[in-house]
Amino acid sequence: VIERLGAPLAEPIFDELAIIGVGLIGSSIARAARRRNAARRIVVADHTVATLERAKALALADVVTDDPARAVSGADCVILCVPIGAYGAVGRAIAPALRPGTIVSDVGSVKSAVISALEAALPGHARLAPAHPVAGTEQSGPDAGFASLFVNRWCILTPPEGADEQAVTKVKAFWEALGSHVEIMGAAHHDLVLAITSHVPHLIAYNIVGTAADLEEVTRSEVIKFSAGGFRDFTRIAASDPTMWRDVFLHNKDAVLEMLGRFSEDLTALQRMIRRGDGDGLFALFTRTRAIRRGIVAEGQETAAPDFGRRAAETDEPVT
Amino acid sequence: VIERLGAPLAEPIFDELAIIGVGLIGSSIARAARRRNAARRIVVADHTVATLERAKALALADVVTDDPARAVSGADCVILCVPIGAYGAVGRAIAPALRPGTIVSDVGSVKSAVISALEAALPGHARLAPAHPVAGTEQSGPDAGFASLFVNRWCILTPPEGADEQAVTKVKAFWEALGSHVEIMGAAHHDLVLAITSHVPHLIAYNIVGTAADLEEVTRSEVIKFSAGGFRDFTRIAASDPTMWRDVFLHNKDAVLEMLGRFSEDLTALQRMIRRGDGDGLFALFTRTRAIRRGIVAEGQETAAPDFGRRAAETDEPVT
Repeated sequence: VIERLGAPLAEPIFDELAIIGVGLIGSSIARAARRRNAARRIVVADHTVATLERAKALALADVVTDDPARAVSGADCVILCVPIGAYGAVGRAIAPALRPGTIVSDVGSVKSAVISALEAALPGHARLAPAHPVAGTEQSGPDAGFASLFVNRWCILTPPEGADEQAVTKVKAFWEALGSHVEIMGAAHHDLVLAITSHVPHLIAYNIVGTAADLEEVTRSEVIKFSAGGFRDFTRIAASDPTMWRDVFLHNKDAVLEMLGRFSEDLTALQRMIRRGDGDGLFALFTRTRAIRRGIVAEGQETAAPDFGRRAAETDEPVT
Repeated sequence: VIERLGAPLAEPIFDELAIIGVGLIGSSIARAARRRNAARRIVVADHTVATLERAKALALADVVTDDPARAVSGADCVILCVPIGAYGAVGRAIAPALRPGTIVSDVGSVKSAVISALEAALPGHARLAPAHPVAGTEQSGPDAGFASLFVNRWCILTPPEGADEQAVTKVKAFWEALGSHVEIMGAAHHDLVLAITSHVPHLIAYNIVGTAADLEEVTRSEVIKFSAGGFRDFTRIAASDPTMWRDVFLHNKDAVLEMLGRFSEDLTALQRMIRRGDGDGLFALFTRTRAIRRGIVAEGQETAAPDFGRRAAETDEPVT
């Protein structure tokens, strides 16, 4: 699958797009929107001086500012790309500066809590259209972003009750311009789906890396040397941004605890199979899980290449 | 890191190398040994007709046979590349055909059980030198193998008490010829180290994929679509060979249960932090795990590239 952005749009979707928070996701949106001509002007804001300097050096936007209110004052669409714990404060900061009817969207990995926070903070005239692009890498910051991050990935929109239809349609068109497939669902269902496909996987990856780091019988050097046996895949996930993930777990508590409970029950059953030497039970599970993998590769959400290019650079000519 | 095999050796390490089992690992050894001239002749055996046909078509060896006794009869080194549960039967099958002093090695992911099985099955004159190359992909079979699989990976030797020193030295030289770094340790310690760096990671990956597959509230199609949020990394591991992994868990039971117990205790503590809203505790763990990741990348056991080449093919020219 070659994943490319299309040619620039003849007519931009937004006149002025304000992106609040210019890390991995915010900077990727800025790059992709520019490349696709999805917004006539792009303004970015961030509260970290070093991040702003990089955003300027990378020429990510027409205007780079540390003032979120200034950033949104001329925008017809605002996208929040900050950790979920900051939504309340950012919402209150931009509220007085929003023009009537401005679309306010976001990229947060949790949606019910986000909608509550924004509905409380924003003026009634703001048109709320929350979104969650299911894409990312374990890296952080404006240098880590790239324009094709969202190509062939799914973006989930979770319009709240009474959402403005035109706003949702425009946000949908925007994500499609960035190469994404768009699905619309309720916020509560989103939070349950993401708990199992994203939040719990991150939690158990963080957990096993912590368990390994605390062992006395096995040195850290041994854990690192022999990580190619499977462990290293977990460390990649467990290198993701700590602030973002802390906020995800604090704001999707119920769904995460529910899915974690099921995971733990299933793990206890597996532990029992090992203790009893139930080889048939283990084999049955290990065979069943291959079908899900095939589905993911078939749907283009993963490369089928073994080892994700960790495979040695050398070509492997047939041995004669 | 460009990972290349060196030039062919002037003098092979073994005269005749017999490889029993020609799947991902066995076929990769055959390819690499041929490319490096690490053995003058290579014989491979397998009990599956389709695998033998592929081994012949790929020209993996000088001799391809379905008879393990015939395969080892002229060998000065035999490497077992079969699931651990088959070691007893294969050991008994080859025992009468081994020439005096033949080195018998293997590639099993568990070492204590392997040594017991082989010491019981093999004649006293066989020189046992078990090995475990910590390398692999989630794919199986002779077509999945490649010559550079072991380059820059660690291979652990676990010589049993009273092992022949020259045999261990030759097996060490062989794995170094295939590009590996070699470490020597006791079998019990190996089994503990691999339980945390490989076996438990595989177990929890299989487990979460099973949990996701069984949900009623979230459809399988949703799990597949939104897997880019983290889940897909687990499905890769959970696509590994079911027979091999069943045997690993049955034969490294004690170490796996010990490490699984610690993982579960830590997960319970994390669950409690989420329930109580302990953001500082979550943040502290999520920050600490990044250090292990940095070690793995610094040691060349992982690429630092984000997303392992899942990143879109498009180059990301700076936006101007």
